[in-house]
Amino acid sequence: MQVRVLDTTLRDGEQTPGVSLTPEEKLRIALKIDALGADIIEAGSAITSEGEREGIRKITSEGLRAEICSFARAVREDIDAAISCDVDSVHLVVPTSDLHLEHKLRKTREEVLEQAVDCTEYAVDHGILVELSAEDSTRSDMDFLRTIFREGIEAGAERICACDTVGILTPERSYEFYRGLSELGAPLSVHCHNDFGLAVANSLAGLRAGASEVHATINGIGERAGNAALEEVVVALKSLYDVDTSINIEMLYETSRMVARMTGVYLQPNKAIVGENAFAHESGIHADGVLKKAETYEPITPEMVGHRRRFVMGKHIGTHALRKRLDELGMKVADDKLMEIFRRVKTLGDMGKCVTDVDLQAIAEDVLGVMEDKVVDLQEVTIVSGNRVTPTASVKLRVDDREVLEAGTGVGPVDAAIVAIKKSLEDFADITLEEYHVDAITGGTDALIDVVIKLRHGDRIISARSTQPDIIMASVEAFLSGVNRLLANEKSEGTH
Amino acid sequence: MQVRVLDTTLRDGEQTPGVSLTPEEKLRIALKIDALGADIIEAGSAITSEGEREGIRKITSEGLRAEICSFARAVREDIDAAISCDVDSVHLVVPTSDLHLEHKLRKTREEVLEQAVDCTEYAVDHGILVELSAEDSTRSDMDFLRTIFREGIEAGAERICACDTVGILTPERSYEFYRGLSELGAPLSVHCHNDFGLAVANSLAGLRAGASEVHATINGIGERAGNAALEEVVVALKSLYDVDTSINIEMLYETSRMVARMTGVYLQPNKAIVGENAFAHESGIHADGVLKKAETYEPITPEMVGHRRRFVMGKHIGTHALRKRLDELGMKVADDKLMEIFRRVKTLGDMGKCVTDVDLQAIAEDVLGVMEDKVVDLQEVTIVSGNRVTPTASVKLRVDDREVLEAGTGVGPVDAAIVAIKKSLEDFADITLEEYHVDAITGGTDALIDVVIKLRHGDRIISARSTQPDIIMASVEAFLSGVNRLLANEKSEGTH
Repeated sequence: MQVRVLDTTLRDGEQTPGVSLTPEEKLRIALKIDALGADIIEAGSAITSEGEREGIRKITSEGLRAEICSFARAVREDIDAAISCDVDSVHLVVPTSDLHLEHKLRKTREEVLEQAVDCTEYAVDHGILVELSAEDSTRSDMDFLRTIFREGIEAGAERICACDTVGILTPERSYEFYRGLSELGAPLSVHCHNDFGLAVANSLAGLRAGASEVHATINGIGERAGNAALEEVVVALKSLYDVDTSINIEMLYETSRMVARMTGVYLQPNKAIVGENAFAHESGIHADGVLKKAETYEPITPEMVGHRRRFVMGKHIGTHALRKRLDELGMKVADDKLMEIFRRVKTLGDMGKCVTDVDLQAIAEDVLGVMEDKVVDLQEVTIVSGNRVTPTASVKLRVDDREVLEAGTGVGPVDAAIVAIKKSLEDFADITLEEYHVDAITGGTDALIDVVIKLRHGDRIISARSTQPDIIMASVEAFLSGVNRLLANEKSEGTH
Repeated sequence: MQVRVLDTTLRDGEQTPGVSLTPEEKLRIALKIDALGADIIEAGSAITSEGEREGIRKITSEGLRAEICSFARAVREDIDAAISCDVDSVHLVVPTSDLHLEHKLRKTREEVLEQAVDCTEYAVDHGILVELSAEDSTRSDMDFLRTIFREGIEAGAERICACDTVGILTPERSYEFYRGLSELGAPLSVHCHNDFGLAVANSLAGLRAGASEVHATINGIGERAGNAALEEVVVALKSLYDVDTSINIEMLYETSRMVARMTGVYLQPNKAIVGENAFAHESGIHADGVLKKAETYEPITPEMVGHRRRFVMGKHIGTHALRKRLDELGMKVADDKLMEIFRRVKTLGDMGKCVTDVDLQAIAEDVLGVMEDKVVDLQEVTIVSGNRVTPTASVKLRVDDREVLEAGTGVGPVDAAIVAIKKSLEDFADITLEEYHVDAITGGTDALIDVVIKLRHGDRIISARSTQPDIIMASVEAFLSGVNRLLANEKSEGTH
């Protein structure tokens, strides 16, 4: 049996404080999640605003494979809004705990029950499938909960869902809880929140107990600590429980990245399955093991979820991983030189620095005595900017043995400087800036700024980096160091 | 009975790819974790490098309350290194799965057993307590695993630990697995990794099964997807299982922030317990509920873990939360004006924008027709920078009705501009920059840059923000808008 997946990235996920998506962005995410294979897409809450309705309508008009659903409270106005967006179904949510009834709704159990039944019938009469959902169900009276589900099913609800709204289940309690609801005569959904870090485990327990559908969001985004992460639930089901879903697992990483980019909710590197470090290895023992046999430190392959393996140098690195990396960078080194490079990497690590490929190459070149000739050398850069001045930069470069002087303007001082440098190199090499990235700056205005750029020359792409308190100089030096590495490699390739 | 906590932020946590701590940083984190109340601090792996040993020695020489432990492989060289750092104990780790033995160590079970026993005896003979730990134990032959633990205990190991090295346990399997090891005659530790997002649930299951110690890291950092997050395990134990630890729970948030800052591993906002959104509320229904009674949408109070509650405006906001926020900002609005502000906030949300307090104030002032007089007005700012020029800025401000002209230098152009502005305001108001933050910049050199600053005047602190493609202008405008709000409020307060 397959577990059905309801993706609520566009509803619970969009309720993440600070996240707002335009109708176009909603559509783009919905298209991605449809391609990913979710059975149901909860596209939003139609009552929220005109923009929200526009977003949902864009999605329903695409004729996607997935069932398209809107959140609705148990009031006819919400159902009408959902109907106006032409959705297939509503996720009809009714608070069931006395806490929510007394303090939030200020209604009696009888009133809520009546509303639930009325709205279920109303939606069904309008041809809308109803998934009747109990909010804060895990703090509700079980008898009342069963009553509301039974009467809802009688009124036409085709699925029921019990929400652990504040994430207080444990895996054991989740199993018992969903077990007690799994035989009411309609397919049951689990909807878990992550306040104690247990959303995924609780969802899995609910599915073991007989639920047949899981609500989840990409990257686990949502109110507070978020919802069950779709990628974790789906991959755990497959790898640990041998249970299938309709999700195309190899699209998980790209979907995660897209949602992170569009919502602006970036992941911590150690996020399971899709984090940047999920398949990264640094320490000597681990990297050594992975090089010998990946299974030693990887439960699944990165390729399975569309991710990639990565080795990072640091003070825990071992000689095996170091040699491997140097090989990959095209540098063959003798054993004594390797030990010297190894020692220098460890020393940098002890100083609290990480060693990137760029740093490693510099260390190795130094140890090997290859002091490469710089093709491009910065003689002078000056920039002027302000509120009444167009940001302007002049640069003087020595390119091979010619001196080149250029000036440029831009939207800001960094842009002006890079424009001027690109102009200086125009006759010399066709180099394009593929990506410009600055890590978040925190602290004071004198904090170190880490600039990483990606440059392309023909079909070769390289990264370069510089870290300084002056963002302009960091950008200029990263750019020029990248240019030098691009051109130096080509010169040496030319001599073979 | 209390659960014992071994904090391995400084060992497993520091193995996070890209993280390297200096000896001083290790000490500062150790002091914090000792104050937090961990029973055991795994301070590092003494064999790693001279800097690592220096860090561990700094920690052992502090005479902390916690037991100080070093990681060691089952080789005498590692034990010697640990002894040289004067630790109380070693976390002596022996791979036990055939996969690790064959492919990583290339040793037989007999050889590994012999090494484990030999190193245990050797450490005990030198007065070091041994926690004997099985690496990749969850993929090991259970008979061999029991044998190695039994012989280790006989050789003097006082505690045993079984590591789920690649995170493949489920809560059910974890319970069975640790149950089967809990009666070997020594206290048992759980050590879980988070590859499927289950580290916390698996740790809790192991503790229910009879283990008495948990290994965890602050923020769940560690290799790949990291380890069990200390804050999640400890708070779940307390709130969901009524089990105590020695951890001072109200220090969890500040400890999390410190570790994030020192390791550079920042958390996603929806991280449970300690994430920036863990107690943030945006959507209308949720914020409304929390305002009426916090328990409706909060399982624990933010104060319990030293965190704070936060409301964020967006398109899901309801009128209740909006009025509350306006009240807090000191703005009383009539119902019709409230609806107009509400409409404008929703419109911004539909455009994909979040509404910060600064934005909200601007909208409200506009609707209410209060076009406040700016106390400080920017007339002119000019900056010069480059590789042969000290970054220099001049600013001309109108402050009240005086014109002030100042110049300043800094480590970079932004720093120079802020220095100049601060000088201009010196005689006027004592304003300090508490925090300067720039969101990561991605895209090109013409990308929009989002600057957020925190300013203090006396005991008042406010945030201000500006978003522009020019980092200097964004910084200057954020600073001045903050100054104007700080001073305007004080002027109006003065008139009451």
